[in-house]
Amino acid sequence: MNPIYAEMPTTIFEAMSALARELGAINLGQGFPDARGPESVIEAAVTALREGSNQYPPMPGLPELRRAVADHYRRHQDIDLDWTSEVTITSGATEALAAAILALVRPGDEVLLIQPMYDAYLPLVLRAGGVPRFARLAPPDWRIDAAMLDAAFTPATRLVILNNPVNPSASLFDAASLALLAERAVAHDAVVISDEVWEHLVFDGRRHLPIMALPGMRDRTVKIGSAGKIFSLTGWKVGWMCASPALSRVLAKAHQFLTFTTPPNLQAAAAHGLALPDDYFHEMRAGYARSRDRLAAGLADAGYRVLPSAGTYFLSVDLPGSGIAADDVTFAEIAVREAGVATIPVSAFYAEDAVRGVVRLCFAKQDETIDAGIARMAIAR
Amino acid sequence: MNPIYAEMPTTIFEAMSALARELGAINLGQGFPDARGPESVIEAAVTALREGSNQYPPMPGLPELRRAVADHYRRHQDIDLDWTSEVTITSGATEALAAAILALVRPGDEVLLIQPMYDAYLPLVLRAGGVPRFARLAPPDWRIDAAMLDAAFTPATRLVILNNPVNPSASLFDAASLALLAERAVAHDAVVISDEVWEHLVFDGRRHLPIMALPGMRDRTVKIGSAGKIFSLTGWKVGWMCASPALSRVLAKAHQFLTFTTPPNLQAAAAHGLALPDDYFHEMRAGYARSRDRLAAGLADAGYRVLPSAGTYFLSVDLPGSGIAADDVTFAEIAVREAGVATIPVSAFYAEDAVRGVVRLCFAKQDETIDAGIARMAIAR
Ligand SMILES: CSCCC(=O)C(=O)O
Ligand SMILES: CSCCC(=O)C(=O)O
Repeated sequence: MNPIYAEMPTTIFEAMSALARELGAINLGQGFPDARGPESVIEAAVTALREGSNQYPPMPGLPELRRAVADHYRRHQDIDLDWTSEVTITSGATEALAAAILALVRPGDEVLLIQPMYDAYLPLVLRAGGVPRFARLAPPDWRIDAAMLDAAFTPATRLVILNNPVNPSASLFDAASLALLAERAVAHDAVVISDEVWEHLVFDGRRHLPIMALPGMRDRTVKIGSAGKIFSLTGWKVGWMCASPALSRVLAKAHQFLTFTTPPNLQAAAAHGLALPDDYFHEMRAGYARSRDRLAAGLADAGYRVLPSAGTYFLSVDLPGSGIAADDVTFAEIAVREAGVATIPVSAFYAEDAVRGVVRLCFAKQDETIDAGIARMAIAR
Repeated sequence: MNPIYAEMPTTIFEAMSALARELGAINLGQGFPDARGPESVIEAAVTALREGSNQYPPMPGLPELRRAVADHYRRHQDIDLDWTSEVTITSGATEALAAAILALVRPGDEVLLIQPMYDAYLPLVLRAGGVPRFARLAPPDWRIDAAMLDAAFTPATRLVILNNPVNPSASLFDAASLALLAERAVAHDAVVISDEVWEHLVFDGRRHLPIMALPGMRDRTVKIGSAGKIFSLTGWKVGWMCASPALSRVLAKAHQFLTFTTPPNLQAAAAHGLALPDDYFHEMRAGYARSRDRLAAGLADAGYRVLPSAGTYFLSVDLPGSGIAADDVTFAEIAVREAGVATIPVSAFYAEDAVRGVVRLCFAKQDETIDAGIARMAIAR
């Protein structure tokens, strides 16, 4: 057995959800909405199941979805992609990450990871033979600075994995921070895998800035997106990788031997969804922002210090700032077992030198679930 | 970029299907049926889309599908699996292969591959850091023998990848051949990844024998199956890995960072399908056997020497035996471009010392498609 997997724990998200199911706890841990997702998208999947082909679609994806991804980014982010050579559909963003990392890392390449980091990144980099180097962000503003990047980049850096908006910190990198990173990527001739699955989940009038749009980045960025996250249908596992033709050719080779293709009916439905009018995206964001505010207000009333959330499905509470001495892992353990609410300790997103006093909660829930979660969080402290 | 992918061609299946689409050729290349798949299974997916959850199911799969897989193998193959610890659902059998190979191969481990081999095996083994060793089967009977295995096994052999029934040769390994392999796997303490996606596609009253049932193999086999192949819904990408709890724990770790999960509505529908009465499976097999016979008879009439097909969606023609001097790659190229019929050259399934005079055709097609394919094959010679 490969030791990377033999010694690996189950993901914290799965472990917490399993515990929540077992204990009947309110689950504010794993990031998934309890809303249904847009009916017209679900019905598009039904129609395609009944009337379309259920056989292998083309390996890089259904033409209509590849085109829809390119059109969507042209409309929403001012990026110009050639769908025939720059868009590859994957079975979720996790597969896109795996394909990109396996395709781009050569054993011995250094890969810059920015902590806190989504838990798939490091094991995939290690399995690909990469040598991780870490930058470390910390609350309350989770900022990148030049010194931190200069310490992490080396002549062997070939790849950077970026997440923006950032899970779990619910922060967005601004143009200046992205420019710091982009300059160094260009100077080191490194590729940036940019996990932008939360691109539509940005609040209070903010706009997501894709790093691909920065000078020098167009042809060295792999932009990863997720229909599951955009349409609140996390089980669908439809994602994509956008990159220059030269990169896409290699990414597709890795994809063809990971899943080969993605169910055509869900691809067709995602294409339908990406073409929805702007109103859909505005209302979705407004709905999540209301949920965020409801959870934040309730937690504040219960005595928690709530950290700002600029995007994603998440907000965090600062335990020391809330007068709680327990570290995040202990707190999350007590919260789920004794108070009946599942949360995620943010230290799980660090491989070294972890931030210890922050716990993440998911607000992508119906009001009753949020209120029940608040009541249990009040007990947990 | 990783050189394994940078220098890799697009899969022959995708390349031929793309060429067939472009040229308007009859596509008897890539293995997919042009039938619709069972209506009740499709409707089960519709119901689950509309009424079930579209959020992340549990990472190892929906309980109802894991249980259905175990029940199915108990009923059809007399294998006893504990669904809670021995069944992991994947996004198709390709993901199962990737997860199993990435999870089980340590860099430097020798992996025995039996040629002809499905084209995903070798790149995945190489990307995992494995050192391939090859056994070589040849027409007309594609048999394993003891000498061939003794030459291929070494003290460093940790893994064997078996495909049974075999694509592309359409042959089945009998109990004696499997025993030869099993004895050596036990003696070398090797694990066997057994790609059994064609297990239900066996004709003329034959029965598929899972290698897991052989002495000493129960806890050293990873049995891989595919709902897409069983239900003629190849685009659905629902597969699974069955293995001992100790192996399954590690396989799940690799799966969690490849796709994490598989669409819950398609999982629910696959569970429905696996519980269909025996009649469904008998009729499906009988239907494919009729198609096989139709294609075989037509090709024989057109002067081709047709090799026997005991299982899978495929049969092959022997070019020298048909009085055709061209090698398989040249023949397939001429057939698709000049006669308008896509086929697959069997040499594509070898990494070294390829069998050169055999071309594979897919008979999982409606009668009109088969007849049109035969007419074009008559022109191709
Ligand atoms: C694939 S489970 C994790 C979902 C998620 O994005 C999160 O909870 O952070
Ligand atoms: C994933 S495309 C290949 C389908 C198939 O099994 C074949 O044609 O051999």
